[in-house]
Amino acid sequence: MTRIALISQSARLDYFVPLLQAAAPELDVVVWPDPAFEDADVAMCWNAPPGVYAQMPRLRLVHSIAAGVDNVVAGQALRGLPVCRVVDPKLADGMVQYVLWSVLHFHRKFDVALANQRQRVWQRPMQTPAGECRVGLMGLGKLGGAIARSLLGLGYAVNGWSRSAPDIEGLTVFSGPAAFDDFLARTDVLVCVLPLTDATRGILGQRTFDALPRGAAVVNCGRGEHLVAPDLLAALDSGQLRGAVLDVFASEPLPQNDPLWQAPGVIVTPHMATMASSAVVAQQVADNVRRLDAGQPLLNVVDMHRGY
Amino acid sequence: MTRIALISQSARLDYFVPLLQAAAPELDVVVWPDPAFEDADVAMCWNAPPGVYAQMPRLRLVHSIAAGVDNVVAGQALRGLPVCRVVDPKLADGMVQYVLWSVLHFHRKFDVALANQRQRVWQRPMQTPAGECRVGLMGLGKLGGAIARSLLGLGYAVNGWSRSAPDIEGLTVFSGPAAFDDFLARTDVLVCVLPLTDATRGILGQRTFDALPRGAAVVNCGRGEHLVAPDLLAALDSGQLRGAVLDVFASEPLPQNDPLWQAPGVIVTPHMATMASSAVVAQQVADNVRRLDAGQPLLNVVDMHRGY
Repeated sequence: MTRIALISQSARLDYFVPLLQAAAPELDVVVWPDPAFEDADVAMCWNAPPGVYAQMPRLRLVHSIAAGVDNVVAGQALRGLPVCRVVDPKLADGMVQYVLWSVLHFHRKFDVALANQRQRVWQRPMQTPAGECRVGLMGLGKLGGAIARSLLGLGYAVNGWSRSAPDIEGLTVFSGPAAFDDFLARTDVLVCVLPLTDATRGILGQRTFDALPRGAAVVNCGRGEHLVAPDLLAALDSGQLRGAVLDVFASEPLPQNDPLWQAPGVIVTPHMATMASSAVVAQQVADNVRRLDAGQPLLNVVDMHRGY
Repeated sequence: MTRIALISQSARLDYFVPLLQAAAPELDVVVWPDPAFEDADVAMCWNAPPGVYAQMPRLRLVHSIAAGVDNVVAGQALRGLPVCRVVDPKLADGMVQYVLWSVLHFHRKFDVALANQRQRVWQRPMQTPAGECRVGLMGLGKLGGAIARSLLGLGYAVNGWSRSAPDIEGLTVFSGPAAFDDFLARTDVLVCVLPLTDATRGILGQRTFDALPRGAAVVNCGRGEHLVAPDLLAALDSGQLRGAVLDVFASEPLPQNDPLWQAPGVIVTPHMATMASSAVVAQQVADNVRRLDAGQPLLNVVDMHRGY
């Protein structure tokens, strides 16, 4: 009997037990730290404790419960194990909505209007057509591609920065570190939906902010570790940045005493942009376990050299 | 020589003089209250002083500088004069953006997140797909139609309330007073882009709010006179309404001491949703003056029995 262990040091994953049993009644499901996890064939994880896979000699597959695998592989000896992620087609819908709200917020100057409202100030801000608002999209995977299409459909000028260039009409793509400054120089609203890798950690920092036009805005829906928070606060303070919408944080929940909570121009949301449906997660993991047992190719395998 | 008078008791319209002269050099342009206005053939107006047309015996055409004509005809003896409005195709873009931001604001619970941020509270709100958020759109003219198409494209469930039913796939249309309660009963976010007429004045009032599901939200981009502000404040206070985004007010600028400024759940913006481009306004008025002089049919004539 194939055993699957639900493993997380920060979230309770118990709610997946009945979903997995419904999707694959033949599976033996255990929840870490139940010692039976050591004999599991498959680890289904979010924020796995460092070194946990080293205690699992029979492990044949590591599966993230989300689109990202960064917190599933960090601090682990993977010994060549395949790592899979979840790709929920509906995941993009929530992300598209969140980014649309954020881009509209800055483009249509709702940030200015809300600040003026607090002072009872009536002042019509100067408005510009969507085509004059340049959105710079970092990351053009499945989520980034859906965001680009939606923004282009509303008439925004969209540039992307990505290793690969998806075929999206009207999208200008900049690739590689050499093109990064050119990309930033023509960005009014910078949106990050990058995966977290060694190459992207801290990418939302002073060097990036300084390369943006003065008064640009930042939206982070990637990972908290993309952001260097003190650099953001300094760039807001100096006026180099106009504002930021942040959905992800290096430490979640964001600690009570974190200065981001009350920094002028910063909107903090509780990692709510999007989330794969639990039923879809359970079904995709169950499908991959069956493929593993049948010797068939796994779906949504992560390229560990790229990190996503 | 055909004379056109720019008339407004609340706005300075001088900036139209060079635009009109560029669009139609043959016109004689005067600005009320210059006494030469009395001999004008055409009145180009925004918020015209009551009775002004009665002082203009040669008047042959009243032209609004905007999409609405309510403040151009109120308190006037029109004696059968044609009244025209401006239809700027780009006008819809701004309105679509404004309404999208507002619908996303409530659907994705940015209102909850912003309120929680002020208290440093991290709480992931329950999220639902766009298809479970029912937007009720009051008014399906050129602006309402564009809004409906955009919301449907994002997957929202959109119902419209309008005299006429435009042919928009996926849109359910309710017509007439008898269908109003049915329409309201299935509305989570109520959006008003109606023209202001005797039939729609005060339509955003207690009776309407009570017919919405508890916890619905209201977005007003029509006219300030659609809203009964004390009814809104009472409905917010009782929890019948969750929030409101208001762009238009019976008195603009909204007076400093107006309770709407600081009412919990209310977002006040300074009539910024959309505005016809001045160049487009000048061109359309100049075209209509030429048509008037050539005896050709006028464009965008308002049906004064309907009021729009």
